Amino acid sequence: MKSFEKTLRILITAGPTREYIDPVRYLSNDSSGQMGFSLAAAARRLGCDVTLVAGPVALPTPAGVKRIDVISARDMQCAVTKVSAKTDVIIMAAAVADWRPSRTSRAKIKKTTASSKPHSIALIENPDILAELGKKKKPHQILVGFALETEKLERNARAKLAHKRCDWIVANLSTSIGARQSSAILISADGRRTPLPRLLKEDLAVVILSHVLG
Amino acid sequence: MKSFEKTLRILITAGPTREYIDPVRYLSNDSSGQMGFSLAAAARRLGCDVTLVAGPVALPTPAGVKRIDVISARDMQCAVTKVSAKTDVIIMAAAVADWRPSRTSRAKIKKTTASSKPHSIALIENPDILAELGKKKKPHQILVGFALETEKLERNARAKLAHKRCDWIVANLSTSIGARQSSAILISADGRRTPLPRLLKEDLAVVILSHVLG
Repeated sequence: MKSFEKTLRILITAGPTREYIDPVRYLSNDSSGQMGFSLAAAARRLGCDVTLVAGPVALPTPAGVKRIDVISARDMQCAVTKVSAKTDVIIMAAAVADWRPSRTSRAKIKKTTASSKPHSIALIENPDILAELGKKKKPHQILVGFALETEKLERNARAKLAHKRCDWIVANLSTSIGARQSSAILISADGRRTPLPRLLKEDLAVVILSHVLG
Repeated sequence: MKSFEKTLRILITAGPTREYIDPVRYLSNDSSGQMGFSLAAAARRLGCDVTLVAGPVALPTPAGVKRIDVISARDMQCAVTKVSAKTDVIIMAAAVADWRPSRTSRAKIKKTTASSKPHSIALIENPDILAELGKKKKPHQILVGFALETEKLERNARAKLAHKRCDWIVANLSTSIGARQSSAILISADGRRTPLPRLLKEDLAVVILSHVLG
């Protein structure tokens, strides 16, 4: 990896988001935050100034990393928006919920009083944080997205890379989510395709950074 | 507390359940499992033979406790049904999801291909494990439920106690979920009402058992 003239400022998101249906129930996903936290720890070891925006996960903050805890996608959007303009590299490793309930009930929804049968949860789209970052990306900013797919892995990942205007996308299968290990394919905006071996996320983080910062 | 002629067999459920929408997304709730795990640890210290059926939580198994891990409400129903007939006391501390998606997609649902707008998740009711246990309760079995409410705490808890044929119900506010401390009102089928002080869940567990087994 290059040595940098100035300290690189890097923003990393990690973990799932939770989208509340009522005071106790929510929509979420299997993300454990391990990939994002491993990237934050590795970036710090490489001398970067690291801000980690973390969804609700039970992981300790890596030494020397600034951590901002958030719950929902909209919380994450706020936190990211505040920091993003001043960063050189942004890695969106969080599994941000694509949808949230269109309304959050103030009281716990009772089974006996649920108004409609069959009951359903109406959803609306959450802000697309990665796409927003892509639109307002500064010339020398590097934007890295993650694509988690159960099918058509590379095709879907390449479409996301282009659509969200990322510089890199890390494509991995949904079996990686919540797991300690992951294999991935790293794809760059100029078309390079680098399959990465199955590694512990701590090690995969170092490999990803070696490409992205290299 | 009484000393018992034979070892009491106690079944305790703990934690949330997860109801999957697709391979990575799910519905769940804020339950941390602390109340159920504290009850299991305390019951074991009191000499009981303890089986703990636990939803997905990040808690260590209390010493001497048999633990069965489950994910969904239907998993929990299976595990509880296998064990319940042979137990003297059943404490349903788990926050079992009342509903699950009516279908779980095999592939990750793509934002770009979601078929209907506004998108929604159709739900169906999960089995009511507590009510099933109440219906097939043996004469000397003790059944304890939990009622977590955001409003009309005692009225809702008393209705649940009667409807589910419990011997006791622990009524607490939704602020207790996921918290380290909780205050509660213990209500018995014969009408006794015992407000319990705000305590760490470890201590609250001992107090609840002192009433239920006393």
